Amino acid sequence: MNRPTEAPTGFAPLYPIVYQDAVRGALLEDIGRGGDLTTQAIVGAGDTASAAIVARQAGRIAGGAVAAAAFRCLDPDLDIEIRIPDGGDAAAGETVAVIRGSARPILTAERTALNFLARMSGIATVTRDVATAVAPWPARVVCTRKTTPGLRVLEKYAVRAGGGSNHRFGLDDAVLIKDNHIVVAGGVTEAVRRVRRSAGHMVKIEVEVDTLEQLEILLGERVDAVLLDNMPVDMLAEAVRRVGKRMLTEASGGVTPETARAIAATGVDLISIGWLTHSSPALNLSLEVALKL
Amino acid sequence: MNRPTEAPTGFAPLYPIVYQDAVRGALLEDIGRGGDLTTQAIVGAGDTASAAIVARQAGRIAGGAVAAAAFRCLDPDLDIEIRIPDGGDAAAGETVAVIRGSARPILTAERTALNFLARMSGIATVTRDVATAVAPWPARVVCTRKTTPGLRVLEKYAVRAGGGSNHRFGLDDAVLIKDNHIVVAGGVTEAVRRVRRSAGHMVKIEVEVDTLEQLEILLGERVDAVLLDNMPVDMLAEAVRRVGKRMLTEASGGVTPETARAIAATGVDLISIGWLTHSSPALNLSLEVALKL
Amino acid sequence: MNRPTEAPTGFAPLYPIVYQDAVRGALLEDIGRGGDLTTQAIVGAGDTASAAIVARQAGRIAGGAVAAAAFRCLDPDLDIEIRIPDGGDAAAGETVAVIRGSARPILTAERTALNFLARMSGIATVTRDVATAVAPWPARVVCTRKTTPGLRVLEKYAVRAGGGSNHRFGLDDAVLIKDNHIVVAGGVTEAVRRVRRSAGHMVKIEVEVDTLEQLEILLGERVDAVLLDNMPVDMLAEAVRRVGKRMLTEASGGVTPETARAIAATGVDLISIGWLTHSSPALNLSLEVALKL
Amino acid sequence: MNRPTEAPTGFAPLYPIVYQDAVRGALLEDIGRGGDLTTQAIVGAGDTASAAIVARQAGRIAGGAVAAAAFRCLDPDLDIEIRIPDGGDAAAGETVAVIRGSARPILTAERTALNFLARMSGIATVTRDVATAVAPWPARVVCTRKTTPGLRVLEKYAVRAGGGSNHRFGLDDAVLIKDNHIVVAGGVTEAVRRVRRSAGHMVKIEVEVDTLEQLEILLGERVDAVLLDNMPVDMLAEAVRRVGKRMLTEASGGVTPETARAIAATGVDLISIGWLTHSSPALNLSLEVALKL
Amino acid sequence: MNRPTEAPTGFAPLYPIVYQDAVRGALLEDIGRGGDLTTQAIVGAGDTASAAIVARQAGRIAGGAVAAAAFRCLDPDLDIEIRIPDGGDAAAGETVAVIRGSARPILTAERTALNFLARMSGIATVTRDVATAVAPWPARVVCTRKTTPGLRVLEKYAVRAGGGSNHRFGLDDAVLIKDNHIVVAGGVTEAVRRVRRSAGHMVKIEVEVDTLEQLEILLGERVDAVLLDNMPVDMLAEAVRRVGKRMLTEASGGVTPETARAIAATGVDLISIGWLTHSSPALNLSLEVALKL
Amino acid sequence: MNRPTEAPTGFAPLYPIVYQDAVRGALLEDIGRGGDLTTQAIVGAGDTASAAIVARQAGRIAGGAVAAAAFRCLDPDLDIEIRIPDGGDAAAGETVAVIRGSARPILTAERTALNFLARMSGIATVTRDVATAVAPWPARVVCTRKTTPGLRVLEKYAVRAGGGSNHRFGLDDAVLIKDNHIVVAGGVTEAVRRVRRSAGHMVKIEVEVDTLEQLEILLGERVDAVLLDNMPVDMLAEAVRRVGKRMLTEASGGVTPETARAIAATGVDLISIGWLTHSSPALNLSLEVALKL
Repeated sequence: MNRPTEAPTGFAPLYPIVYQDAVRGALLEDIGRGGDLTTQAIVGAGDTASAAIVARQAGRIAGGAVAAAAFRCLDPDLDIEIRIPDGGDAAAGETVAVIRGSARPILTAERTALNFLARMSGIATVTRDVATAVAPWPARVVCTRKTTPGLRVLEKYAVRAGGGSNHRFGLDDAVLIKDNHIVVAGGVTEAVRRVRRSAGHMVKIEVEVDTLEQLEILLGERVDAVLLDNMPVDMLAEAVRRVGKRMLTEASGGVTPETARAIAATGVDLISIGWLTHSSPALNLSLEVALKL
Repeated sequence: MNRPTEAPTGFAPLYPIVYQDAVRGALLEDIGRGGDLTTQAIVGAGDTASAAIVARQAGRIAGGAVAAAAFRCLDPDLDIEIRIPDGGDAAAGETVAVIRGSARPILTAERTALNFLARMSGIATVTRDVATAVAPWPARVVCTRKTTPGLRVLEKYAVRAGGGSNHRFGLDDAVLIKDNHIVVAGGVTEAVRRVRRSAGHMVKIEVEVDTLEQLEILLGERVDAVLLDNMPVDMLAEAVRRVGKRMLTEASGGVTPETARAIAATGVDLISIGWLTHSSPALNLSLEVALKL
Repeated sequence: MNRPTEAPTGFAPLYPIVYQDAVRGALLEDIGRGGDLTTQAIVGAGDTASAAIVARQAGRIAGGAVAAAAFRCLDPDLDIEIRIPDGGDAAAGETVAVIRGSARPILTAERTALNFLARMSGIATVTRDVATAVAPWPARVVCTRKTTPGLRVLEKYAVRAGGGSNHRFGLDDAVLIKDNHIVVAGGVTEAVRRVRRSAGHMVKIEVEVDTLEQLEILLGERVDAVLLDNMPVDMLAEAVRRVGKRMLTEASGGVTPETARAIAATGVDLISIGWLTHSSPALNLSLEVALKL
Repeated sequence: MNRPTEAPTGFAPLYPIVYQDAVRGALLEDIGRGGDLTTQAIVGAGDTASAAIVARQAGRIAGGAVAAAAFRCLDPDLDIEIRIPDGGDAAAGETVAVIRGSARPILTAERTALNFLARMSGIATVTRDVATAVAPWPARVVCTRKTTPGLRVLEKYAVRAGGGSNHRFGLDDAVLIKDNHIVVAGGVTEAVRRVRRSAGHMVKIEVEVDTLEQLEILLGERVDAVLLDNMPVDMLAEAVRRVGKRMLTEASGGVTPETARAIAATGVDLISIGWLTHSSPALNLSLEVALKL
Repeated sequence: MNRPTEAPTGFAPLYPIVYQDAVRGALLEDIGRGGDLTTQAIVGAGDTASAAIVARQAGRIAGGAVAAAAFRCLDPDLDIEIRIPDGGDAAAGETVAVIRGSARPILTAERTALNFLARMSGIATVTRDVATAVAPWPARVVCTRKTTPGLRVLEKYAVRAGGGSNHRFGLDDAVLIKDNHIVVAGGVTEAVRRVRRSAGHMVKIEVEVDTLEQLEILLGERVDAVLLDNMPVDMLAEAVRRVGKRMLTEASGGVTPETARAIAATGVDLISIGWLTHSSPALNLSLEVALKL
Repeated sequence: MNRPTEAPTGFAPLYPIVYQDAVRGALLEDIGRGGDLTTQAIVGAGDTASAAIVARQAGRIAGGAVAAAAFRCLDPDLDIEIRIPDGGDAAAGETVAVIRGSARPILTAERTALNFLARMSGIATVTRDVATAVAPWPARVVCTRKTTPGLRVLEKYAVRAGGGSNHRFGLDDAVLIKDNHIVVAGGVTEAVRRVRRSAGHMVKIEVEVDTLEQLEILLGERVDAVLLDNMPVDMLAEAVRRVGKRMLTEASGGVTPETARAIAATGVDLISIGWLTHSSPALNLSLEVALKL
């Protein structure tokens, strides 16, 4: 297994302050008003256990600290050992983490912890697969704003754990002029002009184009990147050629793990994929509990 | 298209009180501190528009009111017409809803509204497909607690919109004795005994078994349902036969749209599927804006 | 005093996650913006104290951990010793808990801690008295949804600490068809039919009847329990007799500590009492502070 | 029935901003994740109803707007008519309010609305009874900080609706030097000295004394009020006589509806009663629904 | 007075969703638990009034909608007329807004509304004065992250209303390498290298330098902007000259309304000023109430 | 430097419960969704540092614990040494606090910590300067309700740290009858009468007057304090003389550090100053980081 002894570049851990409310809310959503009826009835207050989070299928792990926070939210004294850190790969059957301590909180937090970890690892795994596919080319794989409501920070992090990069985090950290904006403005040139007049000096500008004609107009403007939307690979290659180094090029639309290599081969700088975050299947993980001897 | 003039049984609308915080949080997550830099720069305060939410692929719709709430959270005066109500089916290219009014809030809320609607409709669509596959048999398709953190109510609702039913909403509305609980208790009989001693009189009890031997033991107990976990279809059929009408039977594990029919044909009462909520791909929807004339 | 060495069946402790917001909110409600003007002026920052929570009257204790959380919310370093655990009985004058440490937070959190503990212990005490009265019969004493807004989890817990059981925690964990529903449906049979069509497989169904005629109709339906509302003891006994073992029987209305024994003697399974939670007087508790020597 | 055409002195309505979070939280506490299973199944989306909130026993009403907010939180279009305003008296069997509109939200919000109204009216009723008993004397009946966690504003309001007055709202709006503070300070004189050195110029000071000896010492200090704690009526009368008009006198401890008159007859200015808020039984109210014709 | 018929470029209104929690929190902070004791006692429930918000000194207005939200939070029916919109200038004595309706909510919300409006207008006024001073040169006046905790969005908006621009909204929307980062990295070149390796493609990079030597090193790197910190005007001019058009230049430190012109005259692109947000005096505004005739 | 070995009278520390939400909110406001892009890229996860908070100008310190809470919110293991406690004075260049530990959280929390500390110390410094100016006279310097929305508790505390006192914390802890109330009531006498009829017994009453004629009328009433608004010093002196010891006198309006001495010399009891909290410039503080050796 490939375990990075050092996290990927720019792949800094998240501070708990950014996810603890989500973890707490998810626990309360599961515990409800009546508590874990099954565990309360069957497991004694003094019972202890060892539990392993096991990967049922191979994948890239992300969210270990978030899962740990779910367990610790119920019992700060649980002993949690992360065996595969975020950004590492688990083989099928491999143990991702081990939790030891009071059996009740382990069983009660299990589903919440796994719901976070499986979703984040699912995103990381899919991202890793695409990123690996395009590794021979310089293109970066990036995610979009098509994230799960309330979980954007965690999902963007999972993309980074998968070896991808992040596009905008929201509507306010960069300008992206899309087709609808161009219609309202009455053309690419006017849209760019309006944005340049108001955008802050630390804000980059990207423009979406669908055709080579639109691209030609855009090449006369001073922007940072162009989003080449839904172009066939041939047209995309031509577009990348025409842009040269004048601005960053981003391909979007119709990207699959299969088509990604051909897209990357056009020399495009970025490949953005919405389904990394909105449609990745969860990684199959389970918690296996053993009574502590 | 099949449009129910009457919502499916038990498919009551959600009160906004249960999702408005999620909608508000998602909007703030996208708008951030700086607002929609692109739209603010390009679209005038007085510009108006008509926008259509269009299904790019066929599917079952769920979440119309949630998407509408996202738009109205920015501008209560927007005129929103839901053309395909929750539980209805959209053909590819069909218009799901139309929004008219001030152009800025429409463009700024677009992504948040679609993120809810596409996720919920994706779940509804997959559920519908499985439910349709097993329609000749009495088995109900049910979801699990493997939901997205923070969105359980919405995802359980989407399952209902897809024609499925809901299993437990949390750890506190029913008892489900799983393998780990049985290990702790030292056997099925003892686990059931402990639960019966403490469970409220309005609480049902279900027990998970993996083998016919475990099932035989369970048949001596008074419980409401048995979860037959990961059994091959033959074994499942035998299990259902042995249970007879003594308790409800639920099949779980290894269910796919392809295997669902064979599972349903065993006569099992319920088929539970975690991936309805944790791995359904989002339905492909887009917002197409036109300037209002 | 009777101190259980083992908590009553199903009487599991609450996780702090379910009550810490209520505790925090109550403290802020009392401290306000200006803080504890009296204590700040009189007690030095370095002063320490020992304080005893003393029962001024005999009663069943509930809420020790909640009271402790109030003190620790101001000062995590306070040393708190619970002498009578939840579910134990205090004699008049007996010490329930001892708090040692910095004097200021002890004095400032006093009222908030006692407000929780006195209310919960009041409910536990009244519940214990009724449960004791009916102990010779199998009837369980249960509470209702007539709880204090915001405190349902704590009050339901106090009922368990008093030896009672919990009815529904909310509108969503079981079906209870009441007179108004029957009117809307046009009869018991139709109401039950509608519910059976939509209710999840883990949901139990109870129906309220006022007369033996209604009961006869209900006996033809497949439901889990019947609520026999406001029946005189004779009629109640007849109703219980007619039901036999076909469903659980619950008596409601006009229950007092005095009438409870006669009601229990009818053989009814459950006696539900709204005033356990909405009208129990608080247990008289006080905090007595001594300067630490 | 006595219906004031003008609200009692200082009995201003509450702004919804101060209670809407409590109402919303209570509704969510009852609706849970799954919604009102019974009503959803039985009542159609288009069904309408008229419902009356009826007093099952005579009492003073408080909380009409809060109950109305609960209904409107689910359906802003409900038509709500308050027939007995806060501060008015209901006879047994009298209608307090009428709600008309969609049947589902009326039935679903019923319990939450009544839980607020019954608690607040219970407090108002008990307060009214004591206030009426002492009406021949100038003494005001006041409540304390022994309120339900999270509901202090509503309960203090209910006391005003009952004809009582409010003591401190929290630890920060006045100084009350109690026995524990005197112990820490080493005497009344020193305690008062410390407070006078630090208290703001808009802050009043009250001191608790248990004996006439303590009172004599206090009479040498410049404070605004004295709390005469748990004194027999004779001693209380002597204490009031000694104080004269030098400061306000407040009697506390052992006050019951029966003893209140004798206490008031001592000429004391204030009678403070903790059980007004911590132990008043709820007023018996019910919601009676009729289908709209 | 100069009243723009069109808002300044990029000066879009804020959606209430971004400030309504701050407004609500501020009102509750002022109303407390007991409400507005003075107004409740003196003003009748039916009294109406007209109130004018008047500028006691000349200044640039910002925050009209926020102030209006404070009034409407207590009474949605108040009629509020904004006479000087955000970005407009008020003369001393001029009326900024008029509020008509129920007198109680006007008086109770007065202070909260003015606290927002006076602070925001104070910032706008100071910003306008500096922006006007440097108007002959192309330099933009920008604010920093030295904002009031909790009010960053409102204060950044006020800067825009004053004719200034915004620098970063937070740590996550652009890279700014400061002296401490350079120390940690061991030099400018290494710091830039590390950032370029990890920063997203839509993220701009700025580097702070204190000396011309550091600047020379930086000129060999590919970054978007340089922050010239605390340089005397002569050195600043030399720095701007050396940079040419290779990157944006920003002057910071020691900027006052007096020195701003000399700084702008160096040709620097941006002048950043922390005290715009952390030390601007509030604009002197008052609310003058008249009884409605 | 003058370091009090004992905190000023009534200058008790704040409990974290009252400011931790503000600190947490401010950190999230700065960190946003993407985290500290610069620090994450440049500083290693294992890097440690020592950092000093240094006063760039002399001033009174307030808010040390609040700043420390910001650092600890990101990393509870940071070692924080407060060298100048709240209420102490820092010389220019003096170190206020030292933080040691992991370098990343120190750099990321820096701005948030300083934003609190600089604002609070700015208020404390200005307050100290006025309080020092009037020290020869008995007048207390007090702040008003013109505070920053959301920060009232912290700003009132900073005033106390500066040697000032606090006026009302909100509308509910005392009565202040202002000119508008008098207009509504139709005169001072009627306004006071209405208030006396409804105010609680622990509530003080102050009345604002603008003229000696109004004062004369007020002197016939029983109130606790008079606010002499915007009077020239001569008139103020005459007003104070006429009041004698019958009530407290408060001067307001036109107070500057220069005029304060003359105002105090009139013998007035209180001088209230709105700009202490709404317009004090922040104290100039910086964080200087060194790599730990």
